[in-house]
Amino acid sequence: MTKVNILGGYQTKFGELWDKSIYSLAKEAINGVLKDAKISAKQIDIIFVASKLSGETTGQSHLGSLAAEILGINVPSFRVEAACASGGLATTLGYESVKTDRFKTALVLGVEKMTDVSTPEITKFLMQAGDNEKEENSGITFPGIYAIMARVYMEKNKMTRKRLSEISVKNHFHGKLNPLAHFQKEIALEAAINSSMVADPLNLFDCSGLSDGAAAIVLSSSLKESNSSVEIIGSGVASDTLSLQDRESFFELKSTRLAAKKAFKEAKIKQKDIGIIELHDCFTIAEILALEDMGFIEKGKYGLTKIEDFYYNGKLPVNTSGGLKACGHPVGATGVKQIVEVYKQLKGKCGKRQVKNARFGLTHNVGGSGGTAVVHILQANS
Amino acid sequence: MTKVNILGGYQTKFGELWDKSIYSLAKEAINGVLKDAKISAKQIDIIFVASKLSGETTGQSHLGSLAAEILGINVPSFRVEAACASGGLATTLGYESVKTDRFKTALVLGVEKMTDVSTPEITKFLMQAGDNEKEENSGITFPGIYAIMARVYMEKNKMTRKRLSEISVKNHFHGKLNPLAHFQKEIALEAAINSSMVADPLNLFDCSGLSDGAAAIVLSSSLKESNSSVEIIGSGVASDTLSLQDRESFFELKSTRLAAKKAFKEAKIKQKDIGIIELHDCFTIAEILALEDMGFIEKGKYGLTKIEDFYYNGKLPVNTSGGLKACGHPVGATGVKQIVEVYKQLKGKCGKRQVKNARFGLTHNVGGSGGTAVVHILQANS
Repeated sequence: MTKVNILGGYQTKFGELWDKSIYSLAKEAINGVLKDAKISAKQIDIIFVASKLSGETTGQSHLGSLAAEILGINVPSFRVEAACASGGLATTLGYESVKTDRFKTALVLGVEKMTDVSTPEITKFLMQAGDNEKEENSGITFPGIYAIMARVYMEKNKMTRKRLSEISVKNHFHGKLNPLAHFQKEIALEAAINSSMVADPLNLFDCSGLSDGAAAIVLSSSLKESNSSVEIIGSGVASDTLSLQDRESFFELKSTRLAAKKAFKEAKIKQKDIGIIELHDCFTIAEILALEDMGFIEKGKYGLTKIEDFYYNGKLPVNTSGGLKACGHPVGATGVKQIVEVYKQLKGKCGKRQVKNARFGLTHNVGGSGGTAVVHILQANS
Repeated sequence: MTKVNILGGYQTKFGELWDKSIYSLAKEAINGVLKDAKISAKQIDIIFVASKLSGETTGQSHLGSLAAEILGINVPSFRVEAACASGGLATTLGYESVKTDRFKTALVLGVEKMTDVSTPEITKFLMQAGDNEKEENSGITFPGIYAIMARVYMEKNKMTRKRLSEISVKNHFHGKLNPLAHFQKEIALEAAINSSMVADPLNLFDCSGLSDGAAAIVLSSSLKESNSSVEIIGSGVASDTLSLQDRESFFELKSTRLAAKKAFKEAKIKQKDIGIIELHDCFTIAEILALEDMGFIEKGKYGLTKIEDFYYNGKLPVNTSGGLKACGHPVGATGVKQIVEVYKQLKGKCGKRQVKNARFGLTHNVGGSGGTAVVHILQANS
């Protein structure tokens, strides 16, 4: 099989970008990634665009055509949607298209506008990712769904609420070190613990925010600078039921477990080899479940770890971008941004939040409450 | 490269299906195609779901997870959106996954609910497929955009309006022969010519309707009944600008031309070999442009043909299902339904509308006014 090199990565500022349209965000990310990859638009053979809500929030869907128009090319172009895992799945399709040698160079773009509509509207749009009949119609929204997971996890494994807040504090600390993050302020543990309750036990600081933003990567079998390349060496996608109530477990994401298993098998490396992780912390509890479901921590044993281990200068840095919590969560862009962050970390380009001695990195992106999960493993070639 | 066999195809009734949810339509198509393919859900390795509007019209997106839930499996599952070409693009991704030998068996599902919302709402949702800034904000909708194409074509090539109405009459005639079609009534040429004007020169009978419906196919490298198989031997996708105004020509779809060229190259056959076509007649003018852009008729010369040639018993049968015009146009399902129709024709299972002596068939699916086009070529193996 052909090698899948990451030629370039670009992230726009994430935040409440009221002066940016979906078109302008897409254009900035596309032009940015072409520059970073040092290639021209004509070298792109196929395009995958991730967006969950562009039709609903901006009146513009059909983003495959929009991306081709920005590039000024006529190549095949696809929009992929899998709720908040859209970016990860678009990356998988780009990876497959290059790995199978059907296309030489793929551009993957994730873009989302979320802050131009009202909170009730965006809440309704986001619930499209859950089960319409069993969940939305009963009145529950995602904070409530993840609160059930958190409650079950905490009761079952005797974990304190403080451990959730520590994750929020860590990710906000990382966000402060990331000039592209939506939230660039440190928060105190006491503030995190005592913030307003959203869905018990999850409070305001346990929840990721609503952001606008875009990110893009270029994947290619062709490589100029062979000395300092990063390649994707494993990709795994798995599905599960839309609704939490139909699952076998309330504190394990089967889709994450299966996706990670597949990605590690393809990459032919082990969990202990990973030096940097960007994972899907839509709520703080999700960071705990992901670390366990991917095999980094034994199921139910997160309580035995120390939060220091997961800081950028710890044993296993997690969410150095700030994660969904502090970097922000423009849903369709998140999965692509995760690849950009790990790519930049493996290239040594992350400034104040740079991790040391990482050769392998991992990204983990979830759709809904686990209806979709996707894991990628990246390797730095020295 | 591995062969991509169509193991089965299924279409639900198309129409105003107010008693069917998106879930029940998806379930009917999935169970129907498994039965037709004579396989179990566990034999499916990957899923692609096409839908343009499910979030907007039903509050349910994340259909990859929904399809996996219906099947009761945890395999990779993707939703693809490219406006009205969503079904064609999902088919392409299924084709690629099998052809490259990364997956053995793919299920492709197209599903759409359009008739549970008001006409102003659905009109607005459909315009997400055009250019939001340049087209929708100026007040134009798709009948107007295609009317410009029709006007330019007619003026430039001295073609009469009657030739448009003949297409509508033909496709309604075919619809009468298709028990799954939305509209199963013949219409008189005079009625078609004199129906209410929508966007000059396109009148009511020049426009496809709004439908609910689903269709599914199973693609596989593995084949049981080798005697009577149909395989996909060519696939081409191309993109163009979102807006008509940015195109090089107003009466040629460059995306169609490029997609057809690629599909024919891969299939290693010529236009003269094709014995049955399902093409994207969202408006009658689109049938003319498609036949020319794909090389079946010289550009501008449709006026020299006879409509009899395109009936199911003519020289080159076009839209024997009734096309988008009479079979109906549940936008995300259409591209998959086209494959189902040609598959059934090549298997000799189309009853009263059965074409004779076709060995090769072609499908053509367009997104927006040509921002995306996709062509597939099918071959019956005797």
